Amino acid sequence: MSDLFLDAFLRAALREDLGGAGDLTTEATVAAGALGGAVAVARQPGIVSGIEPFLRTFTLLDPRIEAERHVDDGARVEAASPIVTLSGPLRGILSGERTALNLLCRLSGIATATRGYVDLVAGTRARIVDTRKTTPGMRALEKAAVRHGGGHNHRFGLYDAILVKDNHVAIAGGVAQAVLAARNHAGHAVKIEVEIDSIEQLDEALAAGVDSILLDNFSLETLREAVKRVDGRVTLEASGGIDECNVRAIAETGVDIISIGALTHSVKALDIGLDIPMA
Amino acid sequence: MSDLFLDAFLRAALREDLGGAGDLTTEATVAAGALGGAVAVARQPGIVSGIEPFLRTFTLLDPRIEAERHVDDGARVEAASPIVTLSGPLRGILSGERTALNLLCRLSGIATATRGYVDLVAGTRARIVDTRKTTPGMRALEKAAVRHGGGHNHRFGLYDAILVKDNHVAIAGGVAQAVLAARNHAGHAVKIEVEIDSIEQLDEALAAGVDSILLDNFSLETLREAVKRVDGRVTLEASGGIDECNVRAIAETGVDIISIGALTHSVKALDIGLDIPMA
Amino acid sequence: MSDLFLDAFLRAALREDLGGAGDLTTEATVAAGALGGAVAVARQPGIVSGIEPFLRTFTLLDPRIEAERHVDDGARVEAASPIVTLSGPLRGILSGERTALNLLCRLSGIATATRGYVDLVAGTRARIVDTRKTTPGMRALEKAAVRHGGGHNHRFGLYDAILVKDNHVAIAGGVAQAVLAARNHAGHAVKIEVEIDSIEQLDEALAAGVDSILLDNFSLETLREAVKRVDGRVTLEASGGIDECNVRAIAETGVDIISIGALTHSVKALDIGLDIPMA
Amino acid sequence: MSDLFLDAFLRAALREDLGGAGDLTTEATVAAGALGGAVAVARQPGIVSGIEPFLRTFTLLDPRIEAERHVDDGARVEAASPIVTLSGPLRGILSGERTALNLLCRLSGIATATRGYVDLVAGTRARIVDTRKTTPGMRALEKAAVRHGGGHNHRFGLYDAILVKDNHVAIAGGVAQAVLAARNHAGHAVKIEVEIDSIEQLDEALAAGVDSILLDNFSLETLREAVKRVDGRVTLEASGGIDECNVRAIAETGVDIISIGALTHSVKALDIGLDIPMA
Amino acid sequence: MSDLFLDAFLRAALREDLGGAGDLTTEATVAAGALGGAVAVARQPGIVSGIEPFLRTFTLLDPRIEAERHVDDGARVEAASPIVTLSGPLRGILSGERTALNLLCRLSGIATATRGYVDLVAGTRARIVDTRKTTPGMRALEKAAVRHGGGHNHRFGLYDAILVKDNHVAIAGGVAQAVLAARNHAGHAVKIEVEIDSIEQLDEALAAGVDSILLDNFSLETLREAVKRVDGRVTLEASGGIDECNVRAIAETGVDIISIGALTHSVKALDIGLDIPMA
Amino acid sequence: MSDLFLDAFLRAALREDLGGAGDLTTEATVAAGALGGAVAVARQPGIVSGIEPFLRTFTLLDPRIEAERHVDDGARVEAASPIVTLSGPLRGILSGERTALNLLCRLSGIATATRGYVDLVAGTRARIVDTRKTTPGMRALEKAAVRHGGGHNHRFGLYDAILVKDNHVAIAGGVAQAVLAARNHAGHAVKIEVEIDSIEQLDEALAAGVDSILLDNFSLETLREAVKRVDGRVTLEASGGIDECNVRAIAETGVDIISIGALTHSVKALDIGLDIPMA
Repeated sequence: MSDLFLDAFLRAALREDLGGAGDLTTEATVAAGALGGAVAVARQPGIVSGIEPFLRTFTLLDPRIEAERHVDDGARVEAASPIVTLSGPLRGILSGERTALNLLCRLSGIATATRGYVDLVAGTRARIVDTRKTTPGMRALEKAAVRHGGGHNHRFGLYDAILVKDNHVAIAGGVAQAVLAARNHAGHAVKIEVEIDSIEQLDEALAAGVDSILLDNFSLETLREAVKRVDGRVTLEASGGIDECNVRAIAETGVDIISIGALTHSVKALDIGLDIPMA
Repeated sequence: MSDLFLDAFLRAALREDLGGAGDLTTEATVAAGALGGAVAVARQPGIVSGIEPFLRTFTLLDPRIEAERHVDDGARVEAASPIVTLSGPLRGILSGERTALNLLCRLSGIATATRGYVDLVAGTRARIVDTRKTTPGMRALEKAAVRHGGGHNHRFGLYDAILVKDNHVAIAGGVAQAVLAARNHAGHAVKIEVEIDSIEQLDEALAAGVDSILLDNFSLETLREAVKRVDGRVTLEASGGIDECNVRAIAETGVDIISIGALTHSVKALDIGLDIPMA
Repeated sequence: MSDLFLDAFLRAALREDLGGAGDLTTEATVAAGALGGAVAVARQPGIVSGIEPFLRTFTLLDPRIEAERHVDDGARVEAASPIVTLSGPLRGILSGERTALNLLCRLSGIATATRGYVDLVAGTRARIVDTRKTTPGMRALEKAAVRHGGGHNHRFGLYDAILVKDNHVAIAGGVAQAVLAARNHAGHAVKIEVEIDSIEQLDEALAAGVDSILLDNFSLETLREAVKRVDGRVTLEASGGIDECNVRAIAETGVDIISIGALTHSVKALDIGLDIPMA
Repeated sequence: MSDLFLDAFLRAALREDLGGAGDLTTEATVAAGALGGAVAVARQPGIVSGIEPFLRTFTLLDPRIEAERHVDDGARVEAASPIVTLSGPLRGILSGERTALNLLCRLSGIATATRGYVDLVAGTRARIVDTRKTTPGMRALEKAAVRHGGGHNHRFGLYDAILVKDNHVAIAGGVAQAVLAARNHAGHAVKIEVEIDSIEQLDEALAAGVDSILLDNFSLETLREAVKRVDGRVTLEASGGIDECNVRAIAETGVDIISIGALTHSVKALDIGLDIPMA
Repeated sequence: MSDLFLDAFLRAALREDLGGAGDLTTEATVAAGALGGAVAVARQPGIVSGIEPFLRTFTLLDPRIEAERHVDDGARVEAASPIVTLSGPLRGILSGERTALNLLCRLSGIATATRGYVDLVAGTRARIVDTRKTTPGMRALEKAAVRHGGGHNHRFGLYDAILVKDNHVAIAGGVAQAVLAARNHAGHAVKIEVEIDSIEQLDEALAAGVDSILLDNFSLETLREAVKRVDGRVTLEASGGIDECNVRAIAETGVDIISIGALTHSVKALDIGLDIPMA
Repeated sequence: MSDLFLDAFLRAALREDLGGAGDLTTEATVAAGALGGAVAVARQPGIVSGIEPFLRTFTLLDPRIEAERHVDDGARVEAASPIVTLSGPLRGILSGERTALNLLCRLSGIATATRGYVDLVAGTRARIVDTRKTTPGMRALEKAAVRHGGGHNHRFGLYDAILVKDNHVAIAGGVAQAVLAARNHAGHAVKIEVEIDSIEQLDEALAAGVDSILLDNFSLETLREAVKRVDGRVTLEASGGIDECNVRAIAETGVDIISIGALTHSVKALDIGLDIPMA
């Protein structure tokens, strides 16, 4: 997300926190011209994501605030590691603190969780990917966080790929009919994936000519059978009920893609604080 | 948040998911005029919040979609409980499903967690309150979810109350100076709270004439001492490091307010699905 | 209002004046590269407010326009006093003149009127405060103008404090019931004020536990009695029918707050012009 | 201004007053389903303007609020005259009251002042017209209010007509040069007016081929001379320093147009209240 | 494009035509309550596209305007064929006429041109597809018009598929390197196409593992050779310098896709008028 | 159109092309820090228009992209003529290329066509002017392109001049009635034009006191007669069915204005490419 796209989102976030009257406390207690510094510091280990929106929040409040980055998005930090040092007008630093941290902590939480899964499947062919279960308005930022954590992105929305799910199959009257309809409708630049609920639908899906198949809530055994029968002809995605306990076993079945909604729908914020040293 | 305010947010969320090309899969596989129904069903027990934005998402996509509510915000639901039944054009129902559920699951997750804390402190005088550690763009919705869970709201932003924090105190040169500056600056309709880090600052805070005092990371013993010394003259808020394990003990110290950032910064989405029965 | 919030308002104001075709006269008669200067000059004595939006209007039209400020917001100027000197591309200066002056004259008119009232009550404990009778879209600017004139701000909107008015009391069934409902609903960071129409409601209001009481259209005698009976326990606000003739007498009753709608609803613009010296 | 254009303005005005948290007082004291009525009543005589934005404000808050109009824009009302009766959900009526009245009182104030001037020049050929000294964001509404008061509109902005003012003349090197430049630049659908400061410029302006001439701060005598010399060939506009005391004399000089900035830059709001009868 | 997305575009278009002052002519000459009808009639044969935005333009101006559709998007009409009949308030019909027709004529022009190409390649395997050479702000509407004309859509933007063009290849250091980089970067739901300038690059492109290959400005002979060598393994797209004269020959080489920028970058509006019968 | 007005349009255009995921291809194949240059080169002769929006598109994507202009808007270029040279971050150059060219090619196409007509009528008194048949959202840019091609602008919208068309005449009950209504309604700064269908309406139009008369689809002979009878008293505009074949003959009838809808409704894009030299 370039500044071009980020700015409208951040301005809305700042307006939400500042309202019409502004930061009453800071205006009362900090002189208009006071200068100072601040350091964003990790309070626990994790993977950083969101440095750009974090910094841009301050710049939008006061373009005189400058920054020195100690790490880049995707870096692993330890507790007490500095991430970014800010300097400039103190009012802007204090007024932007909460909005900026809300973003950085949430996105770093996503990156950290993603990295945990990526490490768990290391050495297998499986990619950890996200879903569309993201926070409204933050999808691009959250999908970038997944990449910063070493994961990959599933489709961005309903518009950039076709994913024929169970309801579509039921309405269309079967996997073959649904996929055929999709192929007639879609341009040649659009990939087609179909979700199946049982191994019995696998041959129908393959025959229909899809690019990938989502295996919804399959057992390990059935996943292995699917991998064997498909034999690399299309991409296989495992999805549903995946957590830290079973992800390795699922990866070892040989699937290409493991998608995990909790990466973005149930985020534990990474604890990052803003230290403002006083002379 | 009335429709007036909600709509811009929901439209942006829908645009994020639908893009310029729209829902390719649904347009390919579902006839334009097809009608049907769907039921939002809890997959686990919890407290519901977000019915209004959930429904409004569908209405914005297609005003012909109608709804029957089975429960209201704040209700406790069990696994398999129906929450809302939708009926109308199937395309709109399928295209809005993910955006609407992303909101409902997140907000219900907040309400459920809040209710957990509220139940833990039942019988004490302590209110569970939120913080400003909310998702950018969703503060009003998330603060409503806290109320649906039985909690109360802290200030909405930097603009509606004064909260003199440690950095403001340090910059102003002391608790007394900072609070005095705040009182001179603020209108008579604005409350003033001050954060203190140690019991030693308590008398200074009281003397300065504040409405409430935030006790940051105080031990149980020191909280009790503060409660005793203040003796009801101002509102006392405990904050910092509070979780399910220690919240009851903190409440029993006699503080008025317990604020918990994790209510909104580390949300576990409540599992709610949309069942679309096929004839 | 930081640039962040001001810019959208000013851009809309400029679009309103420039339309799609732009400043036909200036484009026809002034060369694209012509440079020049201009001085904003008071044509009558008063208090200045709005320098920031005045300057920002020109900067948004052409960032090359520079400014030297001769006074700050809140300063008293005499007739013929220079306020700001501009220099840069003449087209931008001429095209922005009317929009920028419309703001500066109106806001300075508010500051000037406020200062008149503030001077009239000098030496009493009374603060002159504004109301919500502001111009739609300009509340933050107009409330800042009141501060520049030496006044203070009442609440900014319906969202940052509770003011239980006669209609709310009537609907709730009495002062006590209305205030109780307000206290249950509001967070601990929200102040509660109640409007009463007669001295008979005073004890009920005090007993209900409010932070301040608005005395609506009270006679001088009744105001004095209210001040005596309240004896400093809550803030007392006089409101209704206040003008230059009676404000001193009202202030001398001992009330804390005098709110005056006309400060913002019936503004006499301060006469300020833009002089463009020609070589 | 149709709803299409009005709605964005009114939504911003409502957001300004309601903020993120909404109308705390009304939500606390009025039940969600409570119904009721209200009557907008003039508290002093005047000309009404702004009924449409007044009503639309309530409709945007709650589309169930209905209205019965007792008069139309442009009508003269006496003290205690009802203007509009509202009925529907009380919460919406109370929450929208101030925003709606702020518009109605201001616009009716403009219409009333305009009507005063129009009545003063009755029987002469002079039209009372407004200027561009309007409130940023409200020009279309304020110019409609001038029409409701019996006045006419000058150009709407810099884009719909050419008005060569003293600075343009000075930069272009003379009246003739400036008007020639304007004629070359403008399309055939654009009128050209030139401002002159002295009777000496009159012939030059006529020779240059303008549609109308603005006589800036001319004495009555010089206005009469200008009327005589022009003899109906172009439209003559008197401007500058016009008030209730001298407007009749100016009109009697025979000018076609009298423009008055104070109509919109120094508005005295018409006192209109909202009465909510309680059963 | 649902109403949800279309409305913002249409409102901007209407504001562009109506400005702040509105439709001066219609307000002067047509009574506010006048009712009437109008028929959109083709003045020449063609394919219709844009009925939805055409009608929505009127509805946004006045929701009381009703419509009867005589044909659907994609229908072939002859000169003098009625397309849609409108009825309702005449002011809205007259004020919306030009904006609505500007859309309908342009989109129908695109559909008509597309249908011309589609008919020319009938019986071959080639699909006629559009490009990203669309009007800024109208891509979704213009791509729908291509579908209404019987064509198909290429990617919607830079975000929904990868198209490695000559510059990317040059920067990456070769076809193989560029495609490898693309595959590592892209998620599994994204298709990859590569543009090649000569038959020599064909094997490298095939080996790199792409989904489709764009053959830029290939001669008929080389196109035939490419088709033969690829033998159905990937999708082949011909592009560059295609017009009505050569499109059939290109299609007969056996390529899958023929993309034509002129479909949207050089549109000849279909002549459609709005007849308003007067009683 | 200053940056102030252009930016919102360009940002929307860029968002349309970049979506939420951005330029997948460029991000995959071009390093974040890579620098380079590019030259916009005409591929065929024509008149350039749109350099400002072309460059601004790149600046909005990345403010570090710099430009050297080789020609100005309105210049005639030959095939292979350089127009602008860009230098800076390659990612921004590649990602902005299509959006920027879509504008430049379209606007230059308009300027080129306009110049063709202007050259055809050289030596006559006739001005070539545009109509309101422009692309929604691009009217100001397209009307500037007409000026760059040597044409002039008709009114910008419904708001800046009155054009009484056949339907208005019919509804009002005749030319005289319609023009009278227009004169009563319009301010003195608004010009009035009336459309007539036959020479019989000419005297009525003249008598009604209009500024100009639109002669709709008049034969050459009738145009000549109208010119003769009007004898310079008002501006005469020929309109309807005008093309390259008949425009000279129409101009030679002596009309003042020739308006041509095809200038903007049926644009042939000028072929301009962006060459990116590789080291």
